[in-house]
Amino acid sequence: MKLVLLSGGSGKRLWPLSNDARSKQFLKVLHDQNGNLQSMVQRVWNQLKIVGLDKSTVIATSQSQMEMIQDQLNEEADLIIEPNRKDTFPAIALAASYLYTNKNTDLDEVIAVLPVDPYVDDRFFNRVKDLEKAINVTKSDLALIGVKPTYPSEKYGYIVPKKKVDGSFETIEVECFIEKPTEEKAKELINQGALWNCGVFGFRLGYLIQLLKEKQYPVQYEGLLEIYDKLPKISFDYEVVEKTKKIAALPYDGYWKDLGTWNTLTEEMVTNQIGYGIISEDSTNTHLINELSIPVTVLGVSNAVIAVSPDGILVSDKEKSPQIKKLVGNFDDRPMYEERRWGWYRVLDYAKYDENQQVLTKRIGIRPGENLSYQYHLTRKETWTVLKGEGIVALNGKLRTVREGDVLQIQIGDKHAIKAITEMEIIEVQAGSELSEEDIVRICMDWMEVEDLCYSII
Amino acid sequence: MKLVLLSGGSGKRLWPLSNDARSKQFLKVLHDQNGNLQSMVQRVWNQLKIVGLDKSTVIATSQSQMEMIQDQLNEEADLIIEPNRKDTFPAIALAASYLYTNKNTDLDEVIAVLPVDPYVDDRFFNRVKDLEKAINVTKSDLALIGVKPTYPSEKYGYIVPKKKVDGSFETIEVECFIEKPTEEKAKELINQGALWNCGVFGFRLGYLIQLLKEKQYPVQYEGLLEIYDKLPKISFDYEVVEKTKKIAALPYDGYWKDLGTWNTLTEEMVTNQIGYGIISEDSTNTHLINELSIPVTVLGVSNAVIAVSPDGILVSDKEKSPQIKKLVGNFDDRPMYEERRWGWYRVLDYAKYDENQQVLTKRIGIRPGENLSYQYHLTRKETWTVLKGEGIVALNGKLRTVREGDVLQIQIGDKHAIKAITEMEIIEVQAGSELSEEDIVRICMDWMEVEDLCYSII
Repeated sequence: MKLVLLSGGSGKRLWPLSNDARSKQFLKVLHDQNGNLQSMVQRVWNQLKIVGLDKSTVIATSQSQMEMIQDQLNEEADLIIEPNRKDTFPAIALAASYLYTNKNTDLDEVIAVLPVDPYVDDRFFNRVKDLEKAINVTKSDLALIGVKPTYPSEKYGYIVPKKKVDGSFETIEVECFIEKPTEEKAKELINQGALWNCGVFGFRLGYLIQLLKEKQYPVQYEGLLEIYDKLPKISFDYEVVEKTKKIAALPYDGYWKDLGTWNTLTEEMVTNQIGYGIISEDSTNTHLINELSIPVTVLGVSNAVIAVSPDGILVSDKEKSPQIKKLVGNFDDRPMYEERRWGWYRVLDYAKYDENQQVLTKRIGIRPGENLSYQYHLTRKETWTVLKGEGIVALNGKLRTVREGDVLQIQIGDKHAIKAITEMEIIEVQAGSELSEEDIVRICMDWMEVEDLCYSII
Repeated sequence: MKLVLLSGGSGKRLWPLSNDARSKQFLKVLHDQNGNLQSMVQRVWNQLKIVGLDKSTVIATSQSQMEMIQDQLNEEADLIIEPNRKDTFPAIALAASYLYTNKNTDLDEVIAVLPVDPYVDDRFFNRVKDLEKAINVTKSDLALIGVKPTYPSEKYGYIVPKKKVDGSFETIEVECFIEKPTEEKAKELINQGALWNCGVFGFRLGYLIQLLKEKQYPVQYEGLLEIYDKLPKISFDYEVVEKTKKIAALPYDGYWKDLGTWNTLTEEMVTNQIGYGIISEDSTNTHLINELSIPVTVLGVSNAVIAVSPDGILVSDKEKSPQIKKLVGNFDDRPMYEERRWGWYRVLDYAKYDENQQVLTKRIGIRPGENLSYQYHLTRKETWTVLKGEGIVALNGKLRTVREGDVLQIQIGDKHAIKAITEMEIIEVQAGSELSEEDIVRICMDWMEVEDLCYSII
């Protein structure tokens, strides 16, 4: 059995802690057994380790999330990078072709696909393992996990059973799917034995490969990558599940929760406060998450979530919090904090004086041994002030060591790179007519190549 | 008649917008007739102009507020600077000695003292003018303004009348003062004709000068300044008013409000939102004041005030907001934004790596023609990156012009100053073992003197 974890959806429902570069699954707001903060991705990865599935798992994700995943999972995970962001059908197809051609996975092997952020008991993953047996026993093309409903929710999709399949291994034969029913309809469905669809399904690799062939898509990984741009933006549910005749569902009778909104997420937080601040005693059932270094005071406000990040500040009633997407849709600010392959940066300040002069100040952290690529800019100068650590700077073909206290001026067109020997932090002041991540002309990424292009001074 | 405005009390009741360097009276949250934001000080100053009292007014304040007042009142006001912060008796005594010796004010002239932040109708200041007549007619030592109560408040002090004084000019003879009565007692007092004490009183200059002589304090301004340290920290109410036998009160039957807490202040704001963000439609009677450049989203939270400044973030129920002082008392962070004689600065970032290395990054704005003093530091280096404008730098005895894009490194012990020709902004990165406003060894303030100490290059 192989697992494909889908790490998609940047989403704004957990704004301001999630942004285009930092999806909800990376927020460290949950706790492990030792009381340390962990993200949803880290929690699921640890659970996969416990049931011994981590070595059989690949994670399908986008370029923008790659560095974050590698950082949070200590580079343990095998990643499949979508060239650009599509829906679940293209992502799963790409993962299938990767397993088929790059991993030589047998066409009979069962592939289980699951989102990267279900909040579940460890037992859930034993049920994921059972998908293999379910397909074998029921001879279905697809097998889903269905969560036994605990109340007639109007928010979820329901898996409606045809009839109970007899046999030692209890599964349900799926009749159809119903999305977000009314409460009344949901009650009725539950009486019929319907289950919540949690987006977890299994199939034999051969089933999907055959389907790709029928659609005349390449089944080789490299070939599919090449035409990835042209694949339709469509979900696996629409493109595959709804068109599949024989589907089984495996009931799961344990804890499952979608942590996609502030009200559900805060229910799973062990503490009411993360970060600097104070919540008054008469503020009941209120959560504070503060990523800034200035204090937050919450006084007499109950049933609220206050979330503070470099990107913005949310003050929301918990029940209303699912509506946030609508409100923040109009904000179009640049992300103020990003994690990268080599470390991280935080935007401290921005000012626009006129068309020819904008200024952006960042604090940048570079991990020991890592380096920024050798590059130059067309429209901006930079000043680097080294705050901490020791490293090597390449500037217009010359290498020199730098350390705390050194200042570098990088003019427009100056080729420059820096490699940290010990952990480094620098203040970067960018100034020019246009300040965008696009104004980077990369010469090379690899430090060995940078050294080949330079000679040393000192 | 002369007026003394008392600009005291930094206070934390309007945290995070008020701090030690920025008192509530300087917050620009009110509106003038043209819809422009103005502070309490600016509002009162404009009202004094309307009744023609501004030229007869001096403002008693502290060193820390001096630059802010001059900035907000366009340097129109005559200031008396207390050498250190005491209570109202020493402040008023100093102002009286200043009028006596520096302004040659006649001992018979009436002095009216009032706080700098009453929120009142323009008519109130006509009543202030009437204090002179009140003293003449009633032959009292002191005359107060008493606000006609509109409800039996438990928060205010009451002026209790002896009996009504007959005559064309209606005043009340004061029997005693009662602070913060119960509601029941307040009702009783109102029936007796008691008035709210709004901290406004008048007296002949000679009355206070005589009182200072009796206490054997110097009555010359310079002399009193010298022993100011030794004056008791005591209020004018305790030290003078309560010991005065013959006191009259002038009823004022108009709008008066103490804007000292968020709930009362927001009632006088014309708009519900100042700064970047959005308040959902279902958030009723909620105010947002955001001084940061990141957006604030308020979703489904009613009857609240959300105040955001570089110093911190407040999320408070309006009714509970007067309790804030207790909660924020433990925060002891440095002010993140300050206005100065020469301009302003904002702290962007702070990090402490170890005992020998702390780093503080500021954006500094300098007004045209203004300069930072010629100084050096004992424990820190500085890097200046000029973002905007043109100026002259003095560095170790040499003058040079600098403009946008220039970078200056200032080592420990380097003597340095900068004067803006056009409006300048710079990023300053301080790094060293100790970063405090105290680590400044000033050589001189005046730019003419700086030039005398330097020779020009270029």
